[in-house]
Amino acid sequence: MTNHVFWKNNSLYLLDQRELPFKKTYLKCDNIKDVAYAIKSMAVRGAPLIGIVAAYGVVLGIFSILSSKDSVKDKDIENICERLSKTRPTAVNLFWALERMKNAFKKFCKHIDMPGLMLDEAISIHVEDIENNRMLSLFGAELIDDGDTILTHCNAGALAMGGYGTALGVIRAAHESGKRIKVFATETRPYLQGARLTAWELFEEGVDVEIVPDNHVGLLCYKKVINKIIVGADRIALNGDTANKIGTSMVALCAYHYKIPFFIAAPVSTFDRNIQNGASIPIEERNGKEVKYINGKPLTLKAIKARYYSFDITPEQHISNIITEKGIIEKPFKKYIKMLFTV
Amino acid sequence: MTNHVFWKNNSLYLLDQRELPFKKTYLKCDNIKDVAYAIKSMAVRGAPLIGIVAAYGVVLGIFSILSSKDSVKDKDIENICERLSKTRPTAVNLFWALERMKNAFKKFCKHIDMPGLMLDEAISIHVEDIENNRMLSLFGAELIDDGDTILTHCNAGALAMGGYGTALGVIRAAHESGKRIKVFATETRPYLQGARLTAWELFEEGVDVEIVPDNHVGLLCYKKVINKIIVGADRIALNGDTANKIGTSMVALCAYHYKIPFFIAAPVSTFDRNIQNGASIPIEERNGKEVKYINGKPLTLKAIKARYYSFDITPEQHISNIITEKGIIEKPFKKYIKMLFTV
Repeated sequence: MTNHVFWKNNSLYLLDQRELPFKKTYLKCDNIKDVAYAIKSMAVRGAPLIGIVAAYGVVLGIFSILSSKDSVKDKDIENICERLSKTRPTAVNLFWALERMKNAFKKFCKHIDMPGLMLDEAISIHVEDIENNRMLSLFGAELIDDGDTILTHCNAGALAMGGYGTALGVIRAAHESGKRIKVFATETRPYLQGARLTAWELFEEGVDVEIVPDNHVGLLCYKKVINKIIVGADRIALNGDTANKIGTSMVALCAYHYKIPFFIAAPVSTFDRNIQNGASIPIEERNGKEVKYINGKPLTLKAIKARYYSFDITPEQHISNIITEKGIIEKPFKKYIKMLFTV
Repeated sequence: MTNHVFWKNNSLYLLDQRELPFKKTYLKCDNIKDVAYAIKSMAVRGAPLIGIVAAYGVVLGIFSILSSKDSVKDKDIENICERLSKTRPTAVNLFWALERMKNAFKKFCKHIDMPGLMLDEAISIHVEDIENNRMLSLFGAELIDDGDTILTHCNAGALAMGGYGTALGVIRAAHESGKRIKVFATETRPYLQGARLTAWELFEEGVDVEIVPDNHVGLLCYKKVINKIIVGADRIALNGDTANKIGTSMVALCAYHYKIPFFIAAPVSTFDRNIQNGASIPIEERNGKEVKYINGKPLTLKAIKARYYSFDITPEQHISNIITEKGIIEKPFKKYIKMLFTV
């Protein structure tokens, strides 16, 4: 898999995911404006990756200030984090990463190599994410059997993370361990993360993958074509209710109705300790134009309106297990999620 | 609404729905090969329209034979109907219309004006379809209240029928009677009947309509943005199980889960008296390429596979009412559907 996020000569390079799998173009980010644009425009997407990119963004913000001023104040960090936090509202990993960078600044602000230590912190967030992905993938692979046909929605792969992937990490780990797996990837309208990113990632790994439109999940369950479903998450409430890519709640409802195991795979940083249930998770609404155009061409008349919510809430009742780097969470979720933060 | 199917100088003219709403191109059909192509390629689509077009196709077949031979044999009609019946497998209206044309031929085969009478029969099927649409729409409009926000999937509008529409006919009739209605049209991948046809039809009628990706239905139910759902049908079994555009079963499952009324609107010709339940309805699988390309451009790499089923089965449990030109069918469906054919 292509390296899609790296730091070089004090700039952040991000693979522009809007053009994948056709073109590999890198965005060079030199300041927080560039980083905010990359996140907001969905050049980079995926909850953990947004967090990682924002962490590097804080470092770029610090470097920018130091190019014209002698020191960085608490207020500067506040402003940088405020600016980056406004890029996208749903994925909690963004706020989690910014919080961690703020805490790092508190610790290192007096240190002579504060900028270097802040960069180390961003790199740590990045590296830990990859390690957590590998760990949760190993745990999750235990839930996958030889011969399974698995459906996944959107892209919770290497491209959505620092590397490796969560939902796709589990599939990848099971595949690497020799289990024969077939995958259906929903295309995931309107951004087509499934068709463009997930199918591509799995195809490159040699996993047998097929794309289906989002509206096929019901039939695939009814016909017993699939026997497991696994997706990522953008934010998980303390009761297990999960915000993830729009359409996930319908996939989970099908799984529940047809008694097919439905797994969420996400690092612990995806849990929001301030939120009791899904009703409190803000849902991003994006411009309806993103639904109406594909490859710059309109799908219908200009005058016709469209609506586009990026995420929906899957109630914990429809989720079988949550797979994290600290192990697989079973029901009752509320009890075991609480234990994640108390042991 | 544009006239999309008409007979002129012994040719059948069909508005090519693949290019709507951008271009209004008519296909001129002079023989059954042209008609079979129009149906198979989805230049015309929608269960009742396919039936109507096939009926005209039988007439064209008869005219072709008479251009070189003196008479039309039973075997010729069998061959014509066999050929046309193989165009698409799921919509029962196709088989219903062909059966009716066969019966008409039995009646008129000795008549000196057999070709003219067969054309009259095709026109009758066409005219009755429009009348049935208007009747069922009047009945259905009673289920719609002032202020409703209604979701519909795919296109069960004038374009899918001889004219007027079933699901959209109900919306149209309610709108014409002065009820203020807002409609969400799912875009309906991959053919985008919702974005291209439904939204356009309603927009032209002055109905407030917005497009959403197919994966938005769960969230719209969860947020209580919509309070009713109405769709068409391609085939209804005697117990009420309904084959309709792929994705309908997921929409119905959401409706059932969130306790939102879910209506099927379809003429009586959509019922298959030979089928007890949905498990026996054949589901058409089309070429996966139709998923992978939009406007001739690929959505992902050429080598990646895609799958495309055209329809799915909505179990009768998830349907609130079936609206027909003979009235609204309530539960238990089995009992009241039987009565349609016995009174």
